[in-house]
Amino acid sequence: VNEPADQKAAILVEALPYIRRFWGKRVVVKYGGNALFQAPGFDGAEPPEGNGGSRRAPGPSEAGALASFASDVVLMRSVGMLPVVVHGGGPQIGEMMVRLGKVPEFRDGMRVTDAETLEIARMVLVGKVNREIVSAVNVHGALAVGLSGEDANLLTATRRAGDLGFVGDVEVVDPSIVERLLAQGLIPVIATVAADSTGQAYNINADSVAGVLAAALGAEKLVFLTDTEGLRADPDDAESLLRTVTADELDKMVLSGTANAGMVPKVEACARAVRAGVTRAHILDGRVPHALLLEIFTHEGVGTMVSLETTEEVGQ
Amino acid sequence: VNEPADQKAAILVEALPYIRRFWGKRVVVKYGGNALFQAPGFDGAEPPEGNGGSRRAPGPSEAGALASFASDVVLMRSVGMLPVVVHGGGPQIGEMMVRLGKVPEFRDGMRVTDAETLEIARMVLVGKVNREIVSAVNVHGALAVGLSGEDANLLTATRRAGDLGFVGDVEVVDPSIVERLLAQGLIPVIATVAADSTGQAYNINADSVAGVLAAALGAEKLVFLTDTEGLRADPDDAESLLRTVTADELDKMVLSGTANAGMVPKVEACARAVRAGVTRAHILDGRVPHALLLEIFTHEGVGTMVSLETTEEVGQ
Amino acid sequence: VNEPADQKAAILVEALPYIRRFWGKRVVVKYGGNALFQAPGFDGAEPPEGNGGSRRAPGPSEAGALASFASDVVLMRSVGMLPVVVHGGGPQIGEMMVRLGKVPEFRDGMRVTDAETLEIARMVLVGKVNREIVSAVNVHGALAVGLSGEDANLLTATRRAGDLGFVGDVEVVDPSIVERLLAQGLIPVIATVAADSTGQAYNINADSVAGVLAAALGAEKLVFLTDTEGLRADPDDAESLLRTVTADELDKMVLSGTANAGMVPKVEACARAVRAGVTRAHILDGRVPHALLLEIFTHEGVGTMVSLETTEEVGQ
Amino acid sequence: VNEPADQKAAILVEALPYIRRFWGKRVVVKYGGNALFQAPGFDGAEPPEGNGGSRRAPGPSEAGALASFASDVVLMRSVGMLPVVVHGGGPQIGEMMVRLGKVPEFRDGMRVTDAETLEIARMVLVGKVNREIVSAVNVHGALAVGLSGEDANLLTATRRAGDLGFVGDVEVVDPSIVERLLAQGLIPVIATVAADSTGQAYNINADSVAGVLAAALGAEKLVFLTDTEGLRADPDDAESLLRTVTADELDKMVLSGTANAGMVPKVEACARAVRAGVTRAHILDGRVPHALLLEIFTHEGVGTMVSLETTEEVGQ
Amino acid sequence: VNEPADQKAAILVEALPYIRRFWGKRVVVKYGGNALFQAPGFDGAEPPEGNGGSRRAPGPSEAGALASFASDVVLMRSVGMLPVVVHGGGPQIGEMMVRLGKVPEFRDGMRVTDAETLEIARMVLVGKVNREIVSAVNVHGALAVGLSGEDANLLTATRRAGDLGFVGDVEVVDPSIVERLLAQGLIPVIATVAADSTGQAYNINADSVAGVLAAALGAEKLVFLTDTEGLRADPDDAESLLRTVTADELDKMVLSGTANAGMVPKVEACARAVRAGVTRAHILDGRVPHALLLEIFTHEGVGTMVSLETTEEVGQ
Amino acid sequence: VNEPADQKAAILVEALPYIRRFWGKRVVVKYGGNALFQAPGFDGAEPPEGNGGSRRAPGPSEAGALASFASDVVLMRSVGMLPVVVHGGGPQIGEMMVRLGKVPEFRDGMRVTDAETLEIARMVLVGKVNREIVSAVNVHGALAVGLSGEDANLLTATRRAGDLGFVGDVEVVDPSIVERLLAQGLIPVIATVAADSTGQAYNINADSVAGVLAAALGAEKLVFLTDTEGLRADPDDAESLLRTVTADELDKMVLSGTANAGMVPKVEACARAVRAGVTRAHILDGRVPHALLLEIFTHEGVGTMVSLETTEEVGQ
Repeated sequence: VNEPADQKAAILVEALPYIRRFWGKRVVVKYGGNALFQAPGFDGAEPPEGNGGSRRAPGPSEAGALASFASDVVLMRSVGMLPVVVHGGGPQIGEMMVRLGKVPEFRDGMRVTDAETLEIARMVLVGKVNREIVSAVNVHGALAVGLSGEDANLLTATRRAGDLGFVGDVEVVDPSIVERLLAQGLIPVIATVAADSTGQAYNINADSVAGVLAAALGAEKLVFLTDTEGLRADPDDAESLLRTVTADELDKMVLSGTANAGMVPKVEACARAVRAGVTRAHILDGRVPHALLLEIFTHEGVGTMVSLETTEEVGQ
Repeated sequence: VNEPADQKAAILVEALPYIRRFWGKRVVVKYGGNALFQAPGFDGAEPPEGNGGSRRAPGPSEAGALASFASDVVLMRSVGMLPVVVHGGGPQIGEMMVRLGKVPEFRDGMRVTDAETLEIARMVLVGKVNREIVSAVNVHGALAVGLSGEDANLLTATRRAGDLGFVGDVEVVDPSIVERLLAQGLIPVIATVAADSTGQAYNINADSVAGVLAAALGAEKLVFLTDTEGLRADPDDAESLLRTVTADELDKMVLSGTANAGMVPKVEACARAVRAGVTRAHILDGRVPHALLLEIFTHEGVGTMVSLETTEEVGQ
Repeated sequence: VNEPADQKAAILVEALPYIRRFWGKRVVVKYGGNALFQAPGFDGAEPPEGNGGSRRAPGPSEAGALASFASDVVLMRSVGMLPVVVHGGGPQIGEMMVRLGKVPEFRDGMRVTDAETLEIARMVLVGKVNREIVSAVNVHGALAVGLSGEDANLLTATRRAGDLGFVGDVEVVDPSIVERLLAQGLIPVIATVAADSTGQAYNINADSVAGVLAAALGAEKLVFLTDTEGLRADPDDAESLLRTVTADELDKMVLSGTANAGMVPKVEACARAVRAGVTRAHILDGRVPHALLLEIFTHEGVGTMVSLETTEEVGQ
Repeated sequence: VNEPADQKAAILVEALPYIRRFWGKRVVVKYGGNALFQAPGFDGAEPPEGNGGSRRAPGPSEAGALASFASDVVLMRSVGMLPVVVHGGGPQIGEMMVRLGKVPEFRDGMRVTDAETLEIARMVLVGKVNREIVSAVNVHGALAVGLSGEDANLLTATRRAGDLGFVGDVEVVDPSIVERLLAQGLIPVIATVAADSTGQAYNINADSVAGVLAAALGAEKLVFLTDTEGLRADPDDAESLLRTVTADELDKMVLSGTANAGMVPKVEACARAVRAGVTRAHILDGRVPHALLLEIFTHEGVGTMVSLETTEEVGQ
Repeated sequence: VNEPADQKAAILVEALPYIRRFWGKRVVVKYGGNALFQAPGFDGAEPPEGNGGSRRAPGPSEAGALASFASDVVLMRSVGMLPVVVHGGGPQIGEMMVRLGKVPEFRDGMRVTDAETLEIARMVLVGKVNREIVSAVNVHGALAVGLSGEDANLLTATRRAGDLGFVGDVEVVDPSIVERLLAQGLIPVIATVAADSTGQAYNINADSVAGVLAAALGAEKLVFLTDTEGLRADPDDAESLLRTVTADELDKMVLSGTANAGMVPKVEACARAVRAGVTRAHILDGRVPHALLLEIFTHEGVGTMVSLETTEEVGQ
Repeated sequence: VNEPADQKAAILVEALPYIRRFWGKRVVVKYGGNALFQAPGFDGAEPPEGNGGSRRAPGPSEAGALASFASDVVLMRSVGMLPVVVHGGGPQIGEMMVRLGKVPEFRDGMRVTDAETLEIARMVLVGKVNREIVSAVNVHGALAVGLSGEDANLLTATRRAGDLGFVGDVEVVDPSIVERLLAQGLIPVIATVAADSTGQAYNINADSVAGVLAAALGAEKLVFLTDTEGLRADPDDAESLLRTVTADELDKMVLSGTANAGMVPKVEACARAVRAGVTRAHILDGRVPHALLLEIFTHEGVGTMVSLETTEEVGQ
């Protein structure tokens, strides 16, 4: 008998119930600037010392990670799911600032964003990172369309209190342009820059946008692709990885300071999303090739799954 | 690293281009009465000695084969293909005849069909075999709808010349009911009984119907699930399995008598279908579990592929 | 003056208000196995002595009755109504059992249904009676499509308590496949076999299915074509035919035992249907040629009309 | 047995093939000003001596004729046909002119139409005759909508050569408003006044409009309801009524002068319409109650049928 | 620099916010018989002495006023608004009555309408005034379709109490025919004649119809084009023109007799409409060329604006 | 009389025929990097000496020019036209290069584009200029959506022969994403970066893209907003402005060298577009406020109009 053929069939058959369950369902995937470049440092947060300043050429492994992510997203779409990609680009912004002679400045983990920094952030997010993701997907066909919050007024922002400059928060989400692109079989790829009602632009945290958008779209899932294995009960104990966690438990982790600074926006976005009706949120290890596929189409879980209530299920 | 996870992902990724290529494409699958029961004897042809007369209880392996076939069809549908199932039921007809004290009679490999035999054939095909396939698929959801040629005048028949009684050939195909069900996401399962314009019913060879219907629907593929490994260049040489063959080569096999009697209707249907625009026809070994999946979603071929012209491609 | 022409015009004009009133309205018609064959014995109930055992050839009057019924149904459709046909086939099942050497057994008027009997019932209902009705309608064009409860999970059954074997009751009705066929101008013809969630099939009383389906479809009318003149106040008094009756009065007839055994499922189905919103239910004499037409398109009533409340109207 | 019930059913069944054949087909019916009033004199032609001058109160038989016509048109619509009514109003125009002290003047059978006559004609056709037909139909429901050639530029006219004043011919037909109303289940009722491109209005012969419109709409039938029995081979011989006639034979009748003056526009319109693809044209006796129904739904013909070629069929 | 070009651009830019605000909004415009003819006398009310009797030829200024009105309505439609025109025709009715030797009679400002007067009113409104408006609009393309209350039962009337004869009030509005024409990009032009359920026609006050229809259509605006500058606080003081007024203030004007007789139906219609949800009602000076355009597309108001509550805005 | 009101109305009325003529028509507008900044230097060509190097803050007049352009585009959309904006950004690219220490290099008037220059160009065009236009439009509502050639594979590029680096030409246009956005009432704003089939990006001349896209969309008009008055017969003679010119005349200007270097791509795009079926192409003076409005909605022309053949019309 044909042993490997049997196995192939078994894996396709294993995927069947997931394909049927998620047909026509929306999934918001946050693709991190770090996951993309497989480099340390957090999106929107202070990069580890000595990193942002050096000029990095995108190496082959980076291109490979992006291509692998792109084919996962296309596979999701091909079997009837409706993926929406949200991305940041912290490291890439930092790099461009250095090239332009600007010194990145952070306050409480947030980038201080003066007018020039904002212009750089917008150029890099919309004109570079977004383009790279769109191109990587569209190698498979005319599927991805890049958007920022300004397109068809998808996101309206307000300035965040404090001295952070042009850092904003989402005030209104009008997901109609996303709905329309999804209805046409397209994959929206969203850079998280948005304007307020006067047209002034702001840089918005991509994790928050992913959470808010998942809720507005009535998404089935919200997935964060990160450069960690998932959430840990004890940040310093690699053995303490959590497979499932509830929104309430996430709240406690934030309050107790168990979640580290870069994780907080993701953790908060997950909690808010499941409370707003998103069935499951996931924090996955984006460094595992095809983590997205494995999470969605197999029994195996590859990170931390967040639900509203405790549940016995794993790998949903 | 997670070895089996890697492999799972690799198989899903391998399936991606096939999923994309076949999205929205129609595939006509002929599911044989023998494949179904994994028993010797040919559909519509004389059964091997001593078989049809004994009362067979449908054993567990049969139920398993049908369930496996049903899940393959549902998976095809779930990833956007539009499968149409055509079935025969020769062994089951023979069995019922014996129970009713009728002696099956064959002439040139065709069943002689008097009025009573026709009534039995119709009851068994429409009221038994068709129901079993529909039920097996619908365990996965409200997907399959059974049809015979009489429903919405899908097939109009004429009597075949000769002394075969109520054996007919397809005269007109009106695939609109099939098109409508496909448009609603349903899976038509077709029993090959059809009436002529006066309402007189006939028994029609299921292989021929599959070929004619594939052409009328503009199908991408026509697949025969049989109880052989595929076509052989020399019927007596198990090593002479053909992986690819053209319509012209099939013609020669029929003329030279290389194709055995039970294979002829399949061989002719394949040749006619690819000449009418069906891209590929396949004669697969239905005894291999999930043969359909392997053929469609992997690089491996599991039988004989028929195309209009010689081609280098395998596993299309 | 042209006397008959005047009369013709008058009858067409008489039909006008009914045509307008019923345009686009759904009408469920139960066509009985007995009405079809104009023979004694009750559908699903014990046949009168000495009947089921003899082999009956379908005589010319039977074919005529079916053709007349078919043309009535097509006329209804042609003037914009949406007929749905539900049928049984008790006599035909009994006949086939006898041919296969089975002795039909009844308990409290219900057929005891072992696995073999179920298989026979399904074959006869789906593969024979259903086919004959579909063919008779389709002589007028590609209109009828046969269904059983298994198709697209139209009916989900549960086993009825007691020792009756595979006799089931309707647990869930999902009328979407019927709605879709109606929306495409087609006439669904339904055999009352249905599976439970595990795929096990059951024989279901056709009268009950007709009632349940009329309610689920929001039908305007539910019509039973029987081999009696209608309901009698006193079963033994031919003069006591009831022209109109309310649901409450039907309840009393069942409780008091005034309704004879074969009538009880029809009487209960009528009462339930009008309580679920079906405007009128009718028990008509199917032996009167074109009883359906006369009931629907003329001032004359030809049987018993059931409504929720007492009303003055006749012939609605 | 119920004798009259049998007969009723028989007549409904007789109508069935016609209902099916004409479902969704367009039928243009010219309803004459004379048919309407059952009075002598020709539409658009010189009235018989001594008629137009007397003030006629619309008698009960007139109202009855209109109501009967209206119910026929509604019945046609109810069984799925798409009737379009075109009407004239010669006698009513003449009457109003007399009331206003104008002397009707005719030249070669055509009304000489000065500016004041045109205004009167328009008022009477659009504001009186059209309204009466619309009201009579709408007693049966919100069905009829009155139009003149000016509405949505249905008809564009040019002035007819000669000294007839504001008498025009149809230059362009834009049937879209009629198509739209038909698509919404409505019955257009058309008064034959039309403007040229400068907005100048003209009176147009209603018979010609009916013919031109039937062609533009791809009508199945064009029906003239007149106050004669039909066409005669010899105008003076009541026995010479023609049941069927071809377009070529109509041409000869016009050339030879066999068709009398008032009939010529109808005869020419019939010939042109069948040549433009209208299957059948009919000249019926509108004085026979429900002539329209009898012609369309029964085997009996009630006037002269015009076809392109000689044919054996009657009553189509 | 190009001075007039600047100005042109400025005016187009000024119009922009109004165009965007009113896109897809319905506006009911009452076009008065007097505005049309720029002559004294009130629609539906007693004409000033010595007027109605003289035969008036429609002078060039009248034609100009109508053409200007028509181009305004077409411009509104061209920029996406959905105008509906309602018209009266008092002066034209009076004129025709005089020509036919009838003496117009008024009671409490209402025309006494015997059967003959009704017939004349209907002919003039539907067959003359309505046609002239339709023709004037359709010079710009196939846009206008004339309707009266009888078409598709748009308006159902009841007889008004008192000795006024066939004067009616609107009992039921079924705006579906208007909705359908609007949905097809057409401009309904409505003459205010309507029938009761027996088919008896009535003359209805056009101002009331405009108000009722605006409410039924959920119109954004109701506009009366009159031959006055607007409403005055003191009818005798030309300086007392009111620019804005509330529904409550209108009630007081009616009660106190400040509104003159001809204005009362307009004033009442405005008050009722804004209470039923119409955002603004306007009484404009139809003698100002393009008053409609100026009111709708510029900051300038040209008459009296009615709203539910006092508001600061002008020119809305 | 109200003098300015008259004038306002007159200008709106003057616009009416243009609004009607262009309803639903597509207009491609090329908005130049120079027009935007009202500064010398040509898009995609060598900037005049001493310009690109100085750091320019966007002054108030620039913001004003963009806002004026945005309101023109929104007005076009509001009256039913379907504008598509294509933009370049030569000066802005040059400026960013200087900031990053790169020396812009030109060969035959084309920018030499190494990998780093390409990345800068893409960031500036997609992440800066495109965003500014989208934001300026969306102050009026959720209307504009930014695209580059990579989105949904709108443009597929090939590398241009020569040593220019990543400078490409359009190979395939797939306008479906543009069609879809237009169908949803949105305004596509297109940055002219595109990838080849391997995903490699190129910088494409925006004038060429505008021409190619106008042809692919079946546009009615192609409009170039430039910083010149239009085309001159003699580049050195300000009096020699051409009001109308044919495609053949444009060819001669290119061949004879009469068109200056920066104009050549526009001139060629105009000639190609009108030959491909675009009715009119225009080269307008973008420095005139609201030049777009004046050209489209008034009799006045404000630049050079290109048509296929000589024509008498001006201001179309």
